[in-house]
Amino acid sequence: FYSSEVRKVTLIPGDGIGPEISAAVQKIFAAAKVPIEWEAVDVTPVRGPDGRFGIPQAAIESVNKNKVGLKGPLMTPVGKGHRSLNLALRKEFNLYANVRPCRSLEGYETLYDNVDVVTIRENTEGEYSGIEHEIVDGVVQSIKLITEEASRRVAEFAFTYTKENGRHKVTAVHKANIMRMSDGLFLHCCREAAEKHPDVKFEEKYLDTVCLNMVQDPTQYDVLVMPNLYGDILSDMCAGLVGGLGLTPSGNIGLNGALFESVHGTAPDIAGQDKANPTALLLSGVMMLRYMNLNDYAERIQQACFATIKESKYRTGDLGGSAKCSEFTDEICRKVQSG
Amino acid sequence: FYSSEVRKVTLIPGDGIGPEISAAVQKIFAAAKVPIEWEAVDVTPVRGPDGRFGIPQAAIESVNKNKVGLKGPLMTPVGKGHRSLNLALRKEFNLYANVRPCRSLEGYETLYDNVDVVTIRENTEGEYSGIEHEIVDGVVQSIKLITEEASRRVAEFAFTYTKENGRHKVTAVHKANIMRMSDGLFLHCCREAAEKHPDVKFEEKYLDTVCLNMVQDPTQYDVLVMPNLYGDILSDMCAGLVGGLGLTPSGNIGLNGALFESVHGTAPDIAGQDKANPTALLLSGVMMLRYMNLNDYAERIQQACFATIKESKYRTGDLGGSAKCSEFTDEICRKVQSG
Ligand SMILES: CC(C)[C@H](C(=O)O)[C@@H](O)C(=O)O
Ligand SMILES: CC(C)[C@H](C(=O)O)[C@@H](O)C(=O)O
Repeated sequence: FYSSEVRKVTLIPGDGIGPEISAAVQKIFAAAKVPIEWEAVDVTPVRGPDGRFGIPQAAIESVNKNKVGLKGPLMTPVGKGHRSLNLALRKEFNLYANVRPCRSLEGYETLYDNVDVVTIRENTEGEYSGIEHEIVDGVVQSIKLITEEASRRVAEFAFTYTKENGRHKVTAVHKANIMRMSDGLFLHCCREAAEKHPDVKFEEKYLDTVCLNMVQDPTQYDVLVMPNLYGDILSDMCAGLVGGLGLTPSGNIGLNGALFESVHGTAPDIAGQDKANPTALLLSGVMMLRYMNLNDYAERIQQACFATIKESKYRTGDLGGSAKCSEFTDEICRKVQSG
Repeated sequence: FYSSEVRKVTLIPGDGIGPEISAAVQKIFAAAKVPIEWEAVDVTPVRGPDGRFGIPQAAIESVNKNKVGLKGPLMTPVGKGHRSLNLALRKEFNLYANVRPCRSLEGYETLYDNVDVVTIRENTEGEYSGIEHEIVDGVVQSIKLITEEASRRVAEFAFTYTKENGRHKVTAVHKANIMRMSDGLFLHCCREAAEKHPDVKFEEKYLDTVCLNMVQDPTQYDVLVMPNLYGDILSDMCAGLVGGLGLTPSGNIGLNGALFESVHGTAPDIAGQDKANPTALLLSGVMMLRYMNLNDYAERIQQACFATIKESKYRTGDLGGSAKCSEFTDEICRKVQSG
């Protein structure tokens, strides 16, 4: 990652507004002369030799080879038996930590000021194990699976991330008062990681308490680490505090690579109309650049994006403005080039 | 419930600030001449004939006989093997629906105006089944148990509650995209109930979406029904929107009775100092009066409570004021008597 030669990055444009916001990101990256080359792949499920639908081999190979990818929103195919493609990708590449920074954007007002939190979500197991049974008629169990390995890995990741990003505190979020063994194990692994990183502040909080505190004063939190479902909930809630999923980036970090994605929907109602807001995907791209140690490019693009949002005339419809996606994008390009 | 004769009600004063806020509620009820007689019981666990700790028989008998109870906060005994006493009570009396209304209080400012939502939480199973195993070293499973019976019961309750309280919409909150069978069953039962109550609007939302929407615009929701853990989370979050657990009531409704409780902590740091805010317990008492069809008393006490909070000089420390619990209480009594 440390060389300055051009590196290939997989691009999964996605569905609905995916292609147009992906094109916007590509345009901005080109304006900034980011030394990467895109390799666009299609992940629409295809029927494999075993008769089952799965991610196309070419897409898998691209990610495995490039080790870094950027992904737009994907539609989940309708009908029973189709699992979310988003989940399939996390699983396929063993993307064990989902990182979602939520930060108040200067000049874009919400009810909250100075929000700056990062949720780190265990991304491979927990309530997302997919193991469910109907025991007898009308009695169903779903299994929440917590392993020491995955819990340790994500806990360790949270502390390392905290230090590398100049942050100070990790909050482990749990319901070990109820799920004493599973959340208890998760918490135990967080405590162990905390001991290895005495320079990072550590605290433990019940999920319900965090939800209550978060809507009253989000500034009391910094980095939060938690099992899968809790992360799903808290990350969306935190996104809500700063303006929604259209503004917040997301990165899925694995042992052998990472996939960055916008986590909003495909917005089929406005697809193809040059109305979509590419911010979430762009900021996910910025996270990707940091992951690739292309920090200068990351910083420059991020600043241009924030500065453009601050000027209300360039805001897209979702932010209360009337600018087109292309106008917003072009202004970021201008700023990137002149900045 | 329809007679006007004096009825007995079980009172569990609780720990920490429990006794003083219970005394405050008793004083206000007396001032309002509410036709009930309190039967105070202690629920501190005692060792039974089988050697295990449990709720004292006298307490159980009191609730079983009176069928209605009011409960202050309880400490959970420290140490492994002690389950929360709050949970033990819900279980003992099969209190299947937990109802938590959250309403903005006039004159008490938070970031949100006009919040008026009710979370209805399945209270007996789900993630709270208590069934957990360590499968092999470092691999733990917790079982989320969803039954048709309990799901139907709470779904039906939600629709009935909605109508009886002049409300209009029920939102079923779920993650059936992930837990297809368990949350799927819950959702199925909600849909069935919705069909039986075509006069109530019905919608289904993902839990993460509700969390995001709720912090952006809570006024889009009315009554929400959901599995146990989701209710734990959302009810606390909604309480946060209107000022916290010190202001919001809670009722646990069973087939044979109901237990109303404040869900804040025991606040040992201020216990015995005449500083506690009795509002949550008082409003829980108001819910109890409505449950007993003592609506006039309920209305009168609630109005007096709201009016007192509105006058900032009677606010206790948790609301940014400096009034004592007794001053706040006495003012409510005055208003109840003069109103
Ligand atoms: C699309 C859905 C399966 C997914 C999840 O539940 O994880 C989404 O909500 C997310 O947070 O990425
Ligand atoms: C005290 C605790 C066991 C309880 C719960 O998790 O249900 C509490 O948070 C609540 O909401 O009543």
